[in-house]
Order: sequence, then structure tokens, then C-alpha cells
Amino acid sequence: MTIDAAKFTDLDMPQRVLLGPGPSMVDPRVLRAMAAPMVGHLDPNFVKLMDQIQELLRYLFQTENDLTLPISGTGTAAMETCVANSVEPGDRVLVCINGYFGLRLAEMAKRYGADVATISRPWGEVFNAEDVRAALEKRAAQVVMIVHGETSSGAMQPLAEIAQVVHEYDGLLLVDTVASLGGVPFSVDDLGIDICYTGSQKCLSSPPGIGPVTFGPRAVEKLNNRATPVANWYLDLTLLRDYWGAPRKYHHTTPISANYALYESLRLVAEEGLETRWARHRRMAEMLWDGLEAIDMTMHVPLENRLASLTTVRIPDGLDELAIRKRLLVDYNIEIAGGLGELGGKVWRVGLMGYSARAENVLLLLAALEKLLG
Amino acid sequence: MTIDAAKFTDLDMPQRVLLGPGPSMVDPRVLRAMAAPMVGHLDPNFVKLMDQIQELLRYLFQTENDLTLPISGTGTAAMETCVANSVEPGDRVLVCINGYFGLRLAEMAKRYGADVATISRPWGEVFNAEDVRAALEKRAAQVVMIVHGETSSGAMQPLAEIAQVVHEYDGLLLVDTVASLGGVPFSVDDLGIDICYTGSQKCLSSPPGIGPVTFGPRAVEKLNNRATPVANWYLDLTLLRDYWGAPRKYHHTTPISANYALYESLRLVAEEGLETRWARHRRMAEMLWDGLEAIDMTMHVPLENRLASLTTVRIPDGLDELAIRKRLLVDYNIEIAGGLGELGGKVWRVGLMGYSARAENVLLLLAALEKLLG
Repeated sequence: MTIDAAKFTDLDMPQRVLLGPGPSMVDPRVLRAMAAPMVGHLDPNFVKLMDQIQELLRYLFQTENDLTLPISGTGTAAMETCVANSVEPGDRVLVCINGYFGLRLAEMAKRYGADVATISRPWGEVFNAEDVRAALEKRAAQVVMIVHGETSSGAMQPLAEIAQVVHEYDGLLLVDTVASLGGVPFSVDDLGIDICYTGSQKCLSSPPGIGPVTFGPRAVEKLNNRATPVANWYLDLTLLRDYWGAPRKYHHTTPISANYALYESLRLVAEEGLETRWARHRRMAEMLWDGLEAIDMTMHVPLENRLASLTTVRIPDGLDELAIRKRLLVDYNIEIAGGLGELGGKVWRVGLMGYSARAENVLLLLAALEKLLG
Repeated sequence: MTIDAAKFTDLDMPQRVLLGPGPSMVDPRVLRAMAAPMVGHLDPNFVKLMDQIQELLRYLFQTENDLTLPISGTGTAAMETCVANSVEPGDRVLVCINGYFGLRLAEMAKRYGADVATISRPWGEVFNAEDVRAALEKRAAQVVMIVHGETSSGAMQPLAEIAQVVHEYDGLLLVDTVASLGGVPFSVDDLGIDICYTGSQKCLSSPPGIGPVTFGPRAVEKLNNRATPVANWYLDLTLLRDYWGAPRKYHHTTPISANYALYESLRLVAEEGLETRWARHRRMAEMLWDGLEAIDMTMHVPLENRLASLTTVRIPDGLDELAIRKRLLVDYNIEIAGGLGELGGKVWRVGLMGYSARAENVLLLLAALEKLLG
């Protein structure tokens, strides 16, 4: 069996302005970091880098949690890590569903043998603490799962009161921050969140492929007292903590270059400072919202629950939305996304995340939309 | 919670000569490929690249299998993909263990609910078809798992006759080629292998983080007729084939830059041609073996079953092996590895894989060892 090597041409990727739900644009410093020489996963220089990455991740999550590390997979793998390590077969789990990623959490929890109950809100709305209290009053749950920034809906979920309620009922709160962490105000420890995960390719502006997670003391206690082994070997935190921690016990070979990229992107977060970074995301989002309203477009999520890093804007009636997105891509190299699930065809999703969240990008998108819609 | 950004210095990784069990050195063309601009995972340019990667992977595996794609994780994730998608709870599985990765396969199969039987050989030896026949005669198995190139022992497992026996007993043959594929003669279709996986960071010389897998027609039939969903959502091939295949249904965001690297490394394989590449690995290995024997060292594995891409060489009695490895690293930037498991302290493991398999590296290692041992 042979192959014609000549037909596989040089990689030739266009320079896109990435304003969809992720991946976001990657800072040139991060791209450069990936070109650093490959070293072994047990190399003393790399082991030192692992420690630094963990320290920077604790700052990103705003936590003192010892068990804080990047999973060698995408945000979805980080999600599955949190589910697989917090759930045992037969556990009662409550999943709050107001978008695509809530549905996914429920599906994953079922695959790990959880007895899943759900509460739902239309995509774009958020839950209040009383919704959760009522559900737990009916049936307590060992783990409550909820999404902080729903990439599918553009809603940002308040969490402080919900965390209190979950703890009153002696549960663990598991929170998805894939689309929000590093872009909007958030603190694992201040909010009292037990389990949290994110991805690399959203507000961190690193390439996809590495997914940070953190487990707090109560979650670690449950992990330490499991009756069954974690059903997923690759994502088993009882093994991964000995690889990332002092025993440095071989488990798998972490993606070295992706860790270089993650380190550089976390360093950019530390240099900018989280508060400044949150403010920048907010400023860019407001510039976008004002601009869209100025051309008579309507945001799908009310201002008080609107996610700065990902905006859902309603598509005007009768518009061929796919044709417009195609022209944005072909004429101006701008990527935005259509709606998912029950918002399919109804909204566009515009991400202003990390290195993409710059005034020139907002201005360009607004100008292009004005031209194409006007 | 604040952080002192200044203490996180520029990434500064040494230029190592990587002659351990992986990662191997990365071709500069592959490092450059990763710096290509980020695009979205649904970008038409990226979708075209996905098709090309699959075509190149079929050449690498030497297979016509439609279900051939890279998993968004390391070789261990590819291993778990093959186990999770081929095993249902209660399935009888036979695992052939003659090294560390056989042990891992058995552990993973158990986590997916398999009823696991094992046969064993000392690390460094291989199985013959009669070993497998005797085990299947005693108890048939739906899946038989075996390692082609054991990174822990340096043995290369003959497979043609074993594949025949497994099929006589109506089982599926699952083969680990993490340390061998692209480095030594191998053909999924000619050998009659049903399920096969590899990693990116060994004979492909791409960074770790992406793990190719292939499922043949009989394995796909079992997958299509499962009574239970695949227990692992992230690695569920019934979902992944709709993401990599025509429906292009969103599942997760594949690591874009890692795919760039994989494409470039597969293109290097196609340009060199598999037969030339196999011959190069063999030539470099023989140069190493001759050189080691010339300084009175003994290979652990007999010539007929010796893996070209990874050599285990016995450590002379009374030598402080760790001190020597440290000096190799500190004085000459050369990385080799110690033994794993039952070969810990007994052998060194020297990898000549992909871009590392060059005459200058072999000569340098031999010269350095001569100096340090002489």
C-alpha cells in the first residue's frame, strides 16, 4: 500500500479573526512557546515547569486547592475528569440544564452510573438558589452540576447562593467554567465551589488540547473514600495527582508542547492581572453590545446575566444567517458561530475571549456586519 | 489572591538529544507547523486537513479501515479508546502480559467491566501462537490484547500467526503499536489486526498529545451492535466517527495545533516512504547494538525478537546507573531511560525513534557511554 506524498501540500492555514465560541486567537508569544525544544516528561526542567503551571492555575482558579492540574485533553476531557472522579455508581446527581453543556453533563453522569435528576431553564436564562433548594428538598444529591458560562446560550450563572444551598444539603458543587474562566470575575474559593474545570482555547487563548481542573478539600475527601475505582483510567485523579505531585509516578506522557503553550498563556494572565483582564473583557463586550444595538440587533440574554466572553445576538427575521456567516469568513476572514440546539438558527454566537478580545476585532466585526446587513 | 508575575521567567528549555522511550526529538518542520495560525475546528480549511490526516494515517497503519482517526489525547488515551470501545461489561478478555503496557491493558479492561484472563512471559520474551491457542482453548475470549513493541522490555511481538488463532476462536485482536508504528515493518491489514493504536511522540516524532487509532470491519460490527453505550464519553467512537466523518457533528474541539504537527509528521513519513523509514530505524539500531557490544554490553532481548525502535541494554553489575544517566543528561544533554517494573535497575532503555534515529545521535551516545563507563 503506497501513497503519493506530493499531493499533501505545505500546511497553509488562513489568518482568521476568531470571534466564535472558541478556539480564540492565540497570542504570538504562545505560538512561539510551542516551538521550544521537546524535552522528556521526566526532565528536571519540565518537572519544574509542571510545578509552575500548577501555581499559575491556582491563581487562575483563585484557589488554594492542592489538587489543581491540567488534564491531557480538551475541556471536554476536563469535564469528564470532574464527573468521573466525583461520581460513583448509584450516586444521586442533580444537573441544572439551561444549555448544551448542561445536557452533556447529565449524559456523562449517567455513563458513570449516576442516578440523575435534572432541573431546566430555557437557554439564555439562569437558575436561582431557590430552584436548586426546591430540587434538593425533593431529593438530596451527592453532586450538583451547573455551568457558569454557557457557550451555547451566552448566559452567566450566579453561583454564591447556590453553593451555600448545595452545602446545606451536604452536596458537592461541580461548575463548568470552560467559556468564562479568565474572562469574567470568578473565584473558586470565595464562591465555595468544590469541583471546577475549564479549557485552554477560550479566555486563556492557548490552543485546545489541555484542560485545567481543581478539586477542593470536600471533593478530595469523597475521592479518597471511594468504594469503587474511578471508571476512567486516563482521567483517574488518584493516579494523576501522583504524576503531577511529589511521587512523580509515571502515568502517561503529558503533551509537552501544549504545556509550554499553557504556561505562556497563564503567564500572560498573571502579567495582565486577573482584575485588569476581567475589565478588558467587559469593556470589549460592552463595545460589542452597544455597536450591535446601534444597528438594531437584540441580545438574547438580559444584561444582568449576560456573559462578557460570549454573546448571543438574535438573528433578524428572514435573514439567511448562513450566507452572512459565510461572507464574514470568505470576505473578511472573520469567524463567528451559529446557534446550537434549541437556539439553532435563532442566534449568532460572538466570542470575545482572551487574545481575541481586542478593540480592533470588535470594530472590524461591527463594520463588516453593518456592510453585510445594511 | 494575587501572584508575582515576575517570578515566572521566559520558557527556557534545553536542546536535549532525546534517546529514551519517548518523546523523541521533533523535526523542526513539525515544530514550525505548530506555529501556523489557529483556525476554528469547523473551518473549511481545517475540515480538509482532517480528511488528509485520516488518509495519511491509513497509510501509516497500512489499512483500508474507514474508522481511522486521531484521538485528542496521548497514546494512553488511544489505548483506552480501543479498550472502551471493544469491551462491554462481562466480556471475556485475554491479555498477553510481557511488560508494563500489557499490565496496563489488563487494568483498563477490568475498569470497563471485562472478565479478564491473562497469560504471562518474562519481560523481554514474546508469545507464540500456541500460547494463545492454549489459553483460548481453555476459555474463549471476545477480545485478545497484546503489545507489538513493548517500550518497557524492548521486545517485538510476532503477530501473523496469533491473529489467525484469535480469529479461529472468533475473537478480535487488539494490538498496541505505540512504540513501534512507523519505525518497524507493520501492516494492520496484512497481519489481520482488528484494533490498533499508537502515539504521536515515538516513531512519528510529533509532540505527545494525539493518539491515532484504527478499527477494522469486525471491530466496527461489534461496536455497532453494543448492548450498552461506551462507558467513556470523550473517547466514544460512535460519536467521534460522526465528528471526523461526513456528519461533522460537534463532539469536542480537537487540538488544532497538535493536528498541524501530526499532519506534518505524517507528511514526513509519506515523503520518506515507510519501507525506507523502517530500514533507517533498523540501520540505526544495528549501529547502536554493534557499538554497545563493542564496549562489552549485552542486549536484554535476543536478536530475533529485538525491537529496533527501543533497545533494552543490561546494566553492568555494580554500576551506579542513575549517576551515569545523570551525567549523560548534565554533561551531554543526552536523555536515556532506566528500566520499568521488573526491569527497574537492570536495563537502560535507549530509543531511536523517528527524528531521533540519526547516525550522529547514535555515535554521540556511544562516545559518551565509552567516556563515562571506560
